[in-house]
Amino acid sequence: MKKLLGLLLIVILGISFCFGQTVTDPPDSQPAASNVRGARYPRITSDLRAIFQVKAPDAQKVQLQMGKVFDMVKGENGIWTYTTEPLVPGFHYYFLIIDGVTVSDPASESFFGWGKMSSGIEVPESGVSYYSLKNVPHGDVRQKWYFSSVTQAWRRCFVYCPPDYNNNLNKKYPVLYLQHGSGEDERGWSVQGKADIIMDNLIAEGKAVPMIIVMDQGYAIKHGAPAPVPGQQPAGPSAFEEVVIKDIIPFIDSNFRTLSDRDHRAMAGLSMGGMQTIQITMSNLDKFSHIGGFSGAGRFSGAGLDVNKDYNGVMADAAAFNKKVKLLWIGIGTAEPQNMYKAVNGFHLALTTAGIKHVYYESPGTDHEWLTWRRSLNEFAPLLFR
Amino acid sequence: MKKLLGLLLIVILGISFCFGQTVTDPPDSQPAASNVRGARYPRITSDLRAIFQVKAPDAQKVQLQMGKVFDMVKGENGIWTYTTEPLVPGFHYYFLIIDGVTVSDPASESFFGWGKMSSGIEVPESGVSYYSLKNVPHGDVRQKWYFSSVTQAWRRCFVYCPPDYNNNLNKKYPVLYLQHGSGEDERGWSVQGKADIIMDNLIAEGKAVPMIIVMDQGYAIKHGAPAPVPGQQPAGPSAFEEVVIKDIIPFIDSNFRTLSDRDHRAMAGLSMGGMQTIQITMSNLDKFSHIGGFSGAGRFSGAGLDVNKDYNGVMADAAAFNKKVKLLWIGIGTAEPQNMYKAVNGFHLALTTAGIKHVYYESPGTDHEWLTWRRSLNEFAPLLFR
Repeated sequence: MKKLLGLLLIVILGISFCFGQTVTDPPDSQPAASNVRGARYPRITSDLRAIFQVKAPDAQKVQLQMGKVFDMVKGENGIWTYTTEPLVPGFHYYFLIIDGVTVSDPASESFFGWGKMSSGIEVPESGVSYYSLKNVPHGDVRQKWYFSSVTQAWRRCFVYCPPDYNNNLNKKYPVLYLQHGSGEDERGWSVQGKADIIMDNLIAEGKAVPMIIVMDQGYAIKHGAPAPVPGQQPAGPSAFEEVVIKDIIPFIDSNFRTLSDRDHRAMAGLSMGGMQTIQITMSNLDKFSHIGGFSGAGRFSGAGLDVNKDYNGVMADAAAFNKKVKLLWIGIGTAEPQNMYKAVNGFHLALTTAGIKHVYYESPGTDHEWLTWRRSLNEFAPLLFR
Repeated sequence: MKKLLGLLLIVILGISFCFGQTVTDPPDSQPAASNVRGARYPRITSDLRAIFQVKAPDAQKVQLQMGKVFDMVKGENGIWTYTTEPLVPGFHYYFLIIDGVTVSDPASESFFGWGKMSSGIEVPESGVSYYSLKNVPHGDVRQKWYFSSVTQAWRRCFVYCPPDYNNNLNKKYPVLYLQHGSGEDERGWSVQGKADIIMDNLIAEGKAVPMIIVMDQGYAIKHGAPAPVPGQQPAGPSAFEEVVIKDIIPFIDSNFRTLSDRDHRAMAGLSMGGMQTIQITMSNLDKFSHIGGFSGAGRFSGAGLDVNKDYNGVMADAAAFNKKVKLLWIGIGTAEPQNMYKAVNGFHLALTTAGIKHVYYESPGTDHEWLTWRRSLNEFAPLLFR
């Protein structure tokens, strides 16, 4: 009977190995790390081209959407293929388009981005290991449910606890509230961003202070507010700021061993999350001392910063602001769309003109994508709570 | 500038609301709870039919795969629709087939099942709340990385810690190792299974002892063993048993406050995970005292159980076995495929004939699906560690 069981297990285990065909794979290439277990495609070549493959004998047109849309080419056995130009390392969202229908690739892990479960491809970065799993003490990422007084609904957050959190039971920790971008959610920073791995590595090297990181969802509709009409813009402003102040911070401070004064509380975010961060922290400087905007500080409108009026004038007295805010950190990728680059760089220039102390970082060669934000976290976190 | 920021946020927030069209939704229906944020389809009617919708003006054929394959019907504006018969409540995997290509639905959350990121639909169960979020103390689910000595690779597990784990810092807890089924992974029990919510509710009602639950991945290839050839069966047996004994249990016992004797260690699993559980626990009765097989105890081969030979004869002396094993629990859904039902029910009958004490449970009207396993956990967990 053991044999029967063994055979059956082998058959069942086979499910995970049935992607693609038993043809020869292109030499000098390997499956992307972001593939599901056992999937041979997409593959990455040694010069960082990605090869995509879809079996679709009956489809009229199969396309790859990754930034732009590329037509895949139909070959033998109805297998469509596309090989990209060499890619920038890091994480890129992508979709397949099957006869005009945009879908995610069953061979890829799914990542919540663009408001839906997207495919993603991880392109390896040679000589860089700050976001690689290493033999160092590891913290954990905890899924927590809490009831929001503002939305009158259950919400979920993920909380990174540093490696020594479970050993130093009398120690209290500073907290970074870290927000995702538009169309993403509370999973973004730990899944696409590898925030836990980045922090484990920084802490192991003594480069960052052990801290708690709270990753929540930047969307919230106040209870009683009109529900958004599908296909239309939401009727009212997001209630996220209220959720942060009234729900999330009190929940975290009462459920984790936090240092709960403003000196030990930071907020940062990427893109939309960066804009939310600036908005929320500037309105609540009694609660936050360290502030980070990754590809989304200020706004993308291009209008100038008026330090006397904007953010209720909290920057009007630069000396007072500089004393109060321990860290204001602004970052942008040099390959981001020009309007975004100009907005963030312009914010940096305006802050400089106004005498507002801040750190400005440019991520070389990266777009409005997760590698910019992994780098941003890796640069930002070491400066916190010093 | 605040206005500009507000407007921009509204535009960005709009991404999550752009699914579907501004047409009238069918009355007496609501979006499935398993949809991504803001998606109007699939919808569930009050008599539990599911309505699927895909915009695909250029596709020749659009189908729904949910158990069987159903042809969707093309209507105005290239929108394809399909309304099911009333569905059994619980969680059902499904896929869309666009001109012959099986893909997941961008409007649904993704769930790792069938060896890929699948779509899933949650059909509400009237009058039942044991897997609903309630206002009770909540534990958490922790993502942990560990390095396996057996596979020589990093592995990930999820660990449920009960609500009082962070308050009773001197308390130690019993541990249940809980496995997913074939084609699934370590995410299955907390995402599809809602194991954390079930446990929070059971513990709040005093029906289950607070316990730690470890959810790991039931696939493992021993370091140095030939890598599986894609499209073929793996060359050797799974090394999962070795990983459980040599890696997972020692990791959990040294990183969590566990009661580490056999009396306080249980293992259970569903389908393939149930078969693995029986195999592993019977070979390691010095380590496990409580055993559960959900839709997968014994094997699906139909061959009779020989208590004198099977499992190295551990059941040959029924009295000794009954004294040693504190709980042997077997469950199956009455609507599961006949071969599965017969195998598990046959195992139950054979155990009865052999005088082996066990609990046998049938989930009324449910198939080889997650509702059977949510119910199984809800029945099984209260019997543990008493």
